[in-house]
Amino acid sequence: MSDQNPVFIPGPTNIPDRLRAAMHVQTRDHRAPDFVETFAPVLEDTKKVFDTRDGTVITFPASGTGGWEAAICNTLSPGDKVLVARYGMFSHRWIDLCQRHQLEVQIIECSWGSGAPADKFEAILTTDKAHDIKAVLVTHNETATGVKSDIAAVRSAMDAASHPAMLFVDCVSSLASMEFHMDAWGVDIAVSGSQKGFMLATGMAILGVSPKALAAMEDAKLSRTFFDFRDMMGANASGGFPYTPPLQLIYGMRESLKMLFEEGLENVYARHFRLAEGVRRAVDAWGLKLVADTPDLYSDTVSAIYVPEGFDSNALTDQAFNAYGVSFGIGLGEMNGKAFRIGHLGSLTDVMVLSGLATIEMAMADLEYPVELGSGVAAAQDYFRRHRAALVRSAA
Amino acid sequence: MSDQNPVFIPGPTNIPDRLRAAMHVQTRDHRAPDFVETFAPVLEDTKKVFDTRDGTVITFPASGTGGWEAAICNTLSPGDKVLVARYGMFSHRWIDLCQRHQLEVQIIECSWGSGAPADKFEAILTTDKAHDIKAVLVTHNETATGVKSDIAAVRSAMDAASHPAMLFVDCVSSLASMEFHMDAWGVDIAVSGSQKGFMLATGMAILGVSPKALAAMEDAKLSRTFFDFRDMMGANASGGFPYTPPLQLIYGMRESLKMLFEEGLENVYARHFRLAEGVRRAVDAWGLKLVADTPDLYSDTVSAIYVPEGFDSNALTDQAFNAYGVSFGIGLGEMNGKAFRIGHLGSLTDVMVLSGLATIEMAMADLEYPVELGSGVAAAQDYFRRHRAALVRSAA
Amino acid sequence: MSDQNPVFIPGPTNIPDRLRAAMHVQTRDHRAPDFVETFAPVLEDTKKVFDTRDGTVITFPASGTGGWEAAICNTLSPGDKVLVARYGMFSHRWIDLCQRHQLEVQIIECSWGSGAPADKFEAILTTDKAHDIKAVLVTHNETATGVKSDIAAVRSAMDAASHPAMLFVDCVSSLASMEFHMDAWGVDIAVSGSQKGFMLATGMAILGVSPKALAAMEDAKLSRTFFDFRDMMGANASGGFPYTPPLQLIYGMRESLKMLFEEGLENVYARHFRLAEGVRRAVDAWGLKLVADTPDLYSDTVSAIYVPEGFDSNALTDQAFNAYGVSFGIGLGEMNGKAFRIGHLGSLTDVMVLSGLATIEMAMADLEYPVELGSGVAAAQDYFRRHRAALVRSAA
Amino acid sequence: MSDQNPVFIPGPTNIPDRLRAAMHVQTRDHRAPDFVETFAPVLEDTKKVFDTRDGTVITFPASGTGGWEAAICNTLSPGDKVLVARYGMFSHRWIDLCQRHQLEVQIIECSWGSGAPADKFEAILTTDKAHDIKAVLVTHNETATGVKSDIAAVRSAMDAASHPAMLFVDCVSSLASMEFHMDAWGVDIAVSGSQKGFMLATGMAILGVSPKALAAMEDAKLSRTFFDFRDMMGANASGGFPYTPPLQLIYGMRESLKMLFEEGLENVYARHFRLAEGVRRAVDAWGLKLVADTPDLYSDTVSAIYVPEGFDSNALTDQAFNAYGVSFGIGLGEMNGKAFRIGHLGSLTDVMVLSGLATIEMAMADLEYPVELGSGVAAAQDYFRRHRAALVRSAA
Repeated sequence: MSDQNPVFIPGPTNIPDRLRAAMHVQTRDHRAPDFVETFAPVLEDTKKVFDTRDGTVITFPASGTGGWEAAICNTLSPGDKVLVARYGMFSHRWIDLCQRHQLEVQIIECSWGSGAPADKFEAILTTDKAHDIKAVLVTHNETATGVKSDIAAVRSAMDAASHPAMLFVDCVSSLASMEFHMDAWGVDIAVSGSQKGFMLATGMAILGVSPKALAAMEDAKLSRTFFDFRDMMGANASGGFPYTPPLQLIYGMRESLKMLFEEGLENVYARHFRLAEGVRRAVDAWGLKLVADTPDLYSDTVSAIYVPEGFDSNALTDQAFNAYGVSFGIGLGEMNGKAFRIGHLGSLTDVMVLSGLATIEMAMADLEYPVELGSGVAAAQDYFRRHRAALVRSAA
Repeated sequence: MSDQNPVFIPGPTNIPDRLRAAMHVQTRDHRAPDFVETFAPVLEDTKKVFDTRDGTVITFPASGTGGWEAAICNTLSPGDKVLVARYGMFSHRWIDLCQRHQLEVQIIECSWGSGAPADKFEAILTTDKAHDIKAVLVTHNETATGVKSDIAAVRSAMDAASHPAMLFVDCVSSLASMEFHMDAWGVDIAVSGSQKGFMLATGMAILGVSPKALAAMEDAKLSRTFFDFRDMMGANASGGFPYTPPLQLIYGMRESLKMLFEEGLENVYARHFRLAEGVRRAVDAWGLKLVADTPDLYSDTVSAIYVPEGFDSNALTDQAFNAYGVSFGIGLGEMNGKAFRIGHLGSLTDVMVLSGLATIEMAMADLEYPVELGSGVAAAQDYFRRHRAALVRSAA
Repeated sequence: MSDQNPVFIPGPTNIPDRLRAAMHVQTRDHRAPDFVETFAPVLEDTKKVFDTRDGTVITFPASGTGGWEAAICNTLSPGDKVLVARYGMFSHRWIDLCQRHQLEVQIIECSWGSGAPADKFEAILTTDKAHDIKAVLVTHNETATGVKSDIAAVRSAMDAASHPAMLFVDCVSSLASMEFHMDAWGVDIAVSGSQKGFMLATGMAILGVSPKALAAMEDAKLSRTFFDFRDMMGANASGGFPYTPPLQLIYGMRESLKMLFEEGLENVYARHFRLAEGVRRAVDAWGLKLVADTPDLYSDTVSAIYVPEGFDSNALTDQAFNAYGVSFGIGLGEMNGKAFRIGHLGSLTDVMVLSGLATIEMAMADLEYPVELGSGVAAAQDYFRRHRAALVRSAA
Repeated sequence: MSDQNPVFIPGPTNIPDRLRAAMHVQTRDHRAPDFVETFAPVLEDTKKVFDTRDGTVITFPASGTGGWEAAICNTLSPGDKVLVARYGMFSHRWIDLCQRHQLEVQIIECSWGSGAPADKFEAILTTDKAHDIKAVLVTHNETATGVKSDIAAVRSAMDAASHPAMLFVDCVSSLASMEFHMDAWGVDIAVSGSQKGFMLATGMAILGVSPKALAAMEDAKLSRTFFDFRDMMGANASGGFPYTPPLQLIYGMRESLKMLFEEGLENVYARHFRLAEGVRRAVDAWGLKLVADTPDLYSDTVSAIYVPEGFDSNALTDQAFNAYGVSFGIGLGEMNGKAFRIGHLGSLTDVMVLSGLATIEMAMADLEYPVELGSGVAAAQDYFRRHRAALVRSAA
């Protein structure tokens, strides 16, 4: 019976019926007008979610990792230098990807729980008089630690250093859930995917690309075909795809955008904040601590929570799954065993969040955590009912 | 977004994906072998749920009310006398139905909150030396009050009176959720439907009919065509239907039976008890009172709960719906305004139940009930985690 | 693999994806505003399909047979006289239903293949000076013979006889497929269902009821509860149902009406004519004969076709099913063995019809019919391509 | 209404309900046991479809193009030499991909309509004493021309030349539809996808990789991360994925394999042959010519058909789509305007194929092709009915 319980992994997220229905579409001819009339507006409307006017939206039938690879390969050449701060599993993976593609990666090691170090970026970029650094890579929302970085601050740092490097941002687990302003923040490539804020199945990498990044394609020597921007943009120009498109996901994307705009992006962000804040109140009530260092870093899409000294976070998530049929995020990388994660993004209600809190409390009690049953739920209930939003009723 | 929240009305119940998929079947020829091979085993397997060997299962494309009408019309004649106790909305409706069909209804008025009065039945039947009473009608689970009656006791009473009346039982909101033993209890017609314990859409009345009831057809003078047992049984004998069958529901029924048998009927009943008991612990913790008079009457499929003096139960269910997008049962009939109901039947998990309790607590707090947030949830959590069942993981 | 082939039974019809998705809705609270906001417009919009302003639409969770029973029971009393012509299986069944409900049925026996005999109605009604006849019952489209009767002519006959009898019409297999004008034709009750022109699953009887028929309720003595108009209309008045509604079908109905209006009723009728005419051209090309006597009687929703002397129509439909996985209608009643039927109603395209014609040709060749392969297909192709409609492209 | 018509593009193919239901699964935790228990057998069972014991199945959330890129990048280094014959759009694209990845591509230009030139391969490989050629790349089924190449002959040629080059085969539009024997043919990498013979949505590249190809990974210097075999195999070893898996497609794949094995691979191949042969009989009857040069090259999954001199194949496919709502494959590359294509692969019945033939005949008549209506249909009907298979009835 457990597939009726929501998942609380930080993506893929719970898919609402409306989007499952949209992705249930029978095979259609992707060379026919119907597809063209569907796909072109999807690309255009997705720009609103990136909050870009000047950028171009490019999608690939791939996961977010594929999106990263596309970002790198279309704009850089072997030996190019990029600047990255490592403060979690996903920034770590991006570094690995760059290194495998023969880029020279300058790494700023940061503690897990911290965010993108704008000041250190500024210092390093200021020193790079030769402008060897071609791109700065930042993970907007570090899914492993529940840390949201300040992209505007990174942009300011780059501007302060008067450095022409491009700014690449991983917004896989933030886009369509937390504020994102591609143009205002001067982001050159933003990489996201279908399975988080867009509430769809996994399978589509979604990128926002600035004119500056597009210009960089001309000199980029890293090899690519599947992920080639030019092939994709060329085919997109006439509403098509350079190879077989993921039709079902594109129809799903159309409906997802409709849902996001019906609710209103501002309301979507406010809902994510409210749900996240409810979770944080529960964490407080339990006497536990977030991995994220400071409140300004708290992510509204995922909370990573330290278990008390002497407990194993893996045992906790196992208990929640085995005893109650509910999935939470395990601790990744150096957080493994030390922290568990509650994903609270995508199509989620206060009621669903409360069921997750109630479940993890039972699992904690089962494992003799010093936590009072109902305490976290009560804290979240109290918050939710004081800050409840007008219900957005979904259409059939 | 609210359609992701479970419903807590006492039916129709939350439909698991597996059954929605089963009912999603494209039109097929109902005169073709595939239908025959599907329908006949469905009828046979449903007998296991009624726990009958001797009985015949008869279905109609109708609601439970249609099932009642079929029970009456196929076995009785205008002017026949039936004996019924009125202790809730559904026993009341059955009385009304009989009266409209020119039956003479002897009514035992009982307080709402009580169950079938076996002793009074015995007394009356003992007096009826002429055996004028042709049938005793009992609502197994009175959905309006959350009262489960003791059918075995009614049977004993009838036997003690050595009365040949038939025993008709409404098990719409109990079958496939609470123990039911048609043969052992000497039930002549048991009336149920697709939308409760079977976890399907509304649209199929499902009856178990004893040989004695079938024999009564011969003399029954009430007119019927759509609900005629003989037409239906005649067509069923060769795997067909006397008119167009509700194909999608029949395929759904096949899968529903598979799910029930995979979990095991005993486990299904145990799960319903566990979930109901969790709800009752919450009610206790809130300091509220069930409508059902005594613990032996507590229903495992629905709890009717009095709101405190001076509060309006309709305002409470409205608040839960309007503020949090969750549906609970309103108070019906004389309970309107005085009690609300939590349906806890069908495909439901501990986690889902906790989300319902958390929601109604918020609504109570919003309306300034003297109830502590989290208190009911904690009581249920405590119960659930001590009495947790091995998880039954559903197949895809 | 055969469930990808269309069915060519005269209902239930092939359900388009859009309607399957609409009926796939999860359980919702039928007492909540969302249901009310859905159901009331459905009732209102269905009036357009009946083409009535003055009538009331009443639905029941039942099949068409249930609809007939509702029509009779709400308006007539035991012993009342009704006038019916028997010219096929469905008029025959209606007679049987009336007789079982203690009505006195005056039957005009007609040959199968003929339609409603307006002249004979007029003659009989003219003689009935005492106005003993309370209702005239006509099957608009006799599904067993593929005969469409002229309801306007029946109305004229009744008017010519200045007879006040009510006019009840079975339009189960014609509504939403062929022209129907309830008000203009003076129909008092029109009975239809969800599974034919509305392209939905079986399970909803749909009636149009005139003010005159509603007035007749006052004196009607036949007993009914499940099918009671007053209970239903009373609950409908506030957007509800007197018992559990078939929620999924009602959401399906909403979408079905949307599809019908998007295509336009006139275009729906024209499409049905075109597809039917294509089938008739094929029948001609095969050298076979329709059961319907004359072209004015040809139904646009189903064609009943005589097999040549010496052949068994059941063997033909069996062959089509067993060898090619396609269902056609068998010959019913006195047509059994003599005729087979091609259903061509509901959501159907020229292309689907051609696949049906191609299949039955193969089956005929397998059984050594004197029919040339491709001949019927070619005749239909020729007709279709000359009379092709602008494609109505369905939305996702 | 047109989405009820089958598509006749050579993939993505018509998705049967059973697979749409399988892919409709709600989000589940891909780190949970349920996923592991699903995914591992999928990988193992897919080996049966490749007919390999020694090979490893590796999948990526990508299209077939991504599969090609994975094949190249994991086994070769910049400057490596590969041998390819160009005889259609897809072999052409593979060449382009290799060139973009800095491989030295030795191209054998062949006429479109011919297949892989085993003799030329042998001649060239024999000359390559230094074994500079690292891989021979062959498109098994050239979707642009409807040509199936003889992979066994290519293997013999390579053996005759005693050349150690690897053999890479594109079987995107042949696997699970036509015979494929990876081990027997000595294929080192076979590249396929989810959207053709597997009858699923687009989005999964599926590769069979020989031990020899795996060994080549050690020295391969082309950069890759998303498409890295080692990352994928490492994660697969414990039932996982190195990044977010396409969950819905994996559940779909499980059901697809079940369907293929239920029908039996031999029966699947026989069905594809039968349907293709029916199409070819129609082409003959029309007096048209296939693009494929000789019968041994005829593909059983797609037929490319020359339009008569003076006609434009694009006008024909446009007419079929615009007038009748049916999609056929357009002529690709140098066939554009000269040939159209009928895809006949995946989940398809004789009846569906006949509807496609009937449609294109109408479109041809509309454009005044010298083709007799019904002639192609009749030829296919005749073939189908003489060579009809026992129907494989799909389960619900």
